[in-house]
This record gives sequence, structure tokens and C-alpha cells, in this order.
Amino acid sequence: MAAFSEEQALVAEANQAFYRAFESFDLEQMRAVWLESDDVACIHPGWELLTGREVVLRSWELIFRDTPRLAFELSDVMVVADRGIGWVSCVENLRHDGEVVGLAVATNLFRQNADGRWFIVCHHASPYARGLP
Amino acid sequence: MAAFSEEQALVAEANQAFYRAFESFDLEQMRAVWLESDDVACIHPGWELLTGREVVLRSWELIFRDTPRLAFELSDVMVVADRGIGWVSCVENLRHDGEVVGLAVATNLFRQNADGRWFIVCHHASPYARGLP
Repeated sequence: MAAFSEEQALVAEANQAFYRAFESFDLEQMRAVWLESDDVACIHPGWELLTGREVVLRSWELIFRDTPRLAFELSDVMVVADRGIGWVSCVENLRHDGEVVGLAVATNLFRQNADGRWFIVCHHASPYARGLP
Repeated sequence: MAAFSEEQALVAEANQAFYRAFESFDLEQMRAVWLESDDVACIHPGWELLTGREVVLRSWELIFRDTPRLAFELSDVMVVADRGIGWVSCVENLRHDGEVVGLAVATNLFRQNADGRWFIVCHHASPYARGLP
């Protein structure tokens, strides 16, 4: 695989920050990685489409309150970055207490704000069984 | 809802072209709406992550060969466009022979090529039951 461009590296870093926020189960940390905009969307596995910053953040509040804490190991990571927009496709290998508990596939989209910092604007995760169909 | 910007309208149009290609069950029509690049990804409901133009197009070939023909009615459509990149979040209301047969939620990402034409670069669709969780 070719080395990442500088912009790709920043998008990969923003993607890592998103998963660190997820693993933290800390709403403030999650709030900090989402763009300050209502043009944001989030689809958790099996959930309906959520749009708008406060609606999306409310969903994280519910997840952090109601679900077991997860750790993420990413594989099959593809990073595309261009003109202040970036996206990552990856497989999330989900662990709980060190055990693999599931697989999900994710599309994460990032935008650069006026200060040059990158924020997530869309997270779409869905379950799959490796080997399907 | 505010009127679409010119760029949003072009992204919405590219999204429609994608679903028309899907409904056509014609591989050449689907081939024409995907960017000529290997930086493309596709996640069909329940499938694993597919990346690269030929891998993605091969998946459409299988779908067009093996699945019943579907029609799509879109709802909850959100269109974001900025600097030659656009994305659409929407709910796909799937019909077969006029009957609603399922719901999926989709994230579709588009890029403008050097000629100013828009192409899809990522399609991520996943099933959900309205009302969940």
C-alpha cells in the first residue's frame, strides 16, 4: 500500500480520534469530535437514520448509558482525502472484556473546518458476518 | 427545508442517477455512474466491505443476476455538498412488484471529476426496522 498523503494521514488521525471517543464512553469526548453543524448524520447498527448534531449526540448518550463498553480493532481500512473532505471505510472488530463479540463495517466521513481541524460528519455502521453472502 | 444550492442539486441528481441505474438492473448503466477510480467502496446490506472499482462492479453484476428486481422510493433525504464532494443520507423504501418489501438506510458519497460531472464513490446500505431501537 502506498504511503498516506499528508491529508490522508490527518483523516486517519481523525478516524482514530473518533474511535478513541467511542471507547472512552465519555459524551464530552464524543461531542468534541463531531463537526459543529446540523449537516451531520449517524446510523448505528440496526438503528434508523439520525440527522442533526443534537439528535446524533443524544444517540451517543443512550449508547454510553445502555450498552456494554467496547474496544475497536480496525481492519481493511481505506482512507480517501481530497480538498478538505475525507472518508474512511473499515471493518470494526468489536471486543468486550478482551473477547471478540462482533463485526461491523463502517463508513466514516470527515470535514475540515475553517481552522484546519478535522471533524466527523457521518458515521454509518452496520453488522455483518464475515464470509457473507 | 431551504432550497438546494446549485451544488446540492447536482448531488441530488447524481443520487437519482444511481438509483435509476440500480432499478435498471443494467450493469452498463451502473458502471457509468461509478467514478473511474479504485478509491471506491460499496457495502450492500449484510455484505462485507468491498473496495476497488472492479470488485464493486462485480457485486452489482451478482445482484442484478441473482436478486428480484427492486424499485426505490427515497425518504428522509439529506444532501450535503461542498467543494466538489457531496453526500446523501436517505431511507430506501424497497418495492418489488409494487409491494413494500423492506427498508434500508443508505449513505452515498459523490465526487466531481475534472470535467465537472458527478460520480458515486461510496454506497453503504444497511437494513433496519423502523422504530428501532
